[in-house]
Amino acid sequence: MREALISAALDLFSERGFEQATVDDIVARAGVGRRSFFRYFPSKESVVFPDHEGCLADMTAFLADRAGDREDPVQRVCEAARLVLRMYAADPDFSLRRYALTRQVPALRAHELAVVWRYERTLGDYLKLRFAERPDGRLRAEVIASAVVAGHNHALRSWLRSGCTGDVEAQMDEALGWVLATAWGTDGQAAGAEGRPDAADGPAHAGPDTDEVVVVVTRRGTPVQRVVERVRAALEE
Amino acid sequence: MREALISAALDLFSERGFEQATVDDIVARAGVGRRSFFRYFPSKESVVFPDHEGCLADMTAFLADRAGDREDPVQRVCEAARLVLRMYAADPDFSLRRYALTRQVPALRAHELAVVWRYERTLGDYLKLRFAERPDGRLRAEVIASAVVAGHNHALRSWLRSGCTGDVEAQMDEALGWVLATAWGTDGQAAGAEGRPDAADGPAHAGPDTDEVVVVVTRRGTPVQRVVERVRAALEE
Repeated sequence: MREALISAALDLFSERGFEQATVDDIVARAGVGRRSFFRYFPSKESVVFPDHEGCLADMTAFLADRAGDREDPVQRVCEAARLVLRMYAADPDFSLRRYALTRQVPALRAHELAVVWRYERTLGDYLKLRFAERPDGRLRAEVIASAVVAGHNHALRSWLRSGCTGDVEAQMDEALGWVLATAWGTDGQAAGAEGRPDAADGPAHAGPDTDEVVVVVTRRGTPVQRVVERVRAALEE
Repeated sequence: MREALISAALDLFSERGFEQATVDDIVARAGVGRRSFFRYFPSKESVVFPDHEGCLADMTAFLADRAGDREDPVQRVCEAARLVLRMYAADPDFSLRRYALTRQVPALRAHELAVVWRYERTLGDYLKLRFAERPDGRLRAEVIASAVVAGHNHALRSWLRSGCTGDVEAQMDEALGWVLATAWGTDGQAAGAEGRPDAADGPAHAGPDTDEVVVVVTRRGTPVQRVVERVRAALEE
């Protein structure tokens, strides 16, 4: 019945426009009673985003698994963001129809922004826990959560714009790889290990011996990013 | 009359709750006609954010000033974000009342998210122009815009939570300084200059002589961020 309601709603929104199609129209088309609609969906907007509540619950459960705290915190939130991407990728036709609707209907766009904000807050709250002992922990958590969501959204939108061609997960990995390649990535890793209560337990993120010396020689005018790459390579050698 | 409507609306929202107070209540309290309300505000939500349209227009004009393209693109969007912060800082009492309302009323929270999204898109569109010649230009623009907005919001929220004590602009500078200290800051500068059509015109962002050699010696295990700072300092000496 839930599927029938979703399908009827999207058909009607496409045919008549979101504002013109009423909940009564939707239940009539689906052949069910009005109360059935509200048993599944709190509002007309929410029928366009039927899987987000479940996905938010999955993300929350994924991040609540303390075994994951052995992983780098930024990598962990990237994996959490992957859950959302997979929800879109699981049904490209539906994702495309929704994309067309959210671009046209401000009320749906607003609903989507509110959903995205809940994902971002979920990721940010997790990072705040992981960065709890850093003086800049809250800021770091909020900015990184926001950057990860932006990277995710960039890949998702590119994929939707292309008519869902190509491997969207690979596209997200590429986008998030770029995010991770900033100081929040590898440095974030080191920083995460520093800030974690259990950092003393294991050498998972420990650096190499601190007595060795690395010498970097570079020309003035070399882009700092390239110097950083060389420093990183030298430190990891 | 506009000020009277805003004041009446906020009083009523505080007294009765946002949902319970109607536009009729607001115009009655303000002593004006119903049509006056809709001359100034398209909806009941928008009366809580009376200055955002003006601020968005200011931001758009600020970024449209091509003289600003001589500046580093990331610095430029940070300056644009400052316009929003100043709008909040200009009236701390009103900002505090709004903050209390947006935390309680989902409809206002949704409205605020939609406004924030328009700021973010404005900053991102500007960065896309500035990064137009980079293959990763769109991604870079979206992620940086999102990180700048997150840094701005962090400072703003901290200031509001503290009851508007302290210098919020200094707090934002600190937060955005952190964002800029990542690879998007100084590196973004170099990259921005590279990617700009007029980069060849002037030495504004040109590095020092490229024939000089810089040597940095560091211990293995030094956090990469610290190495980067030393490399940067050495390059800029």
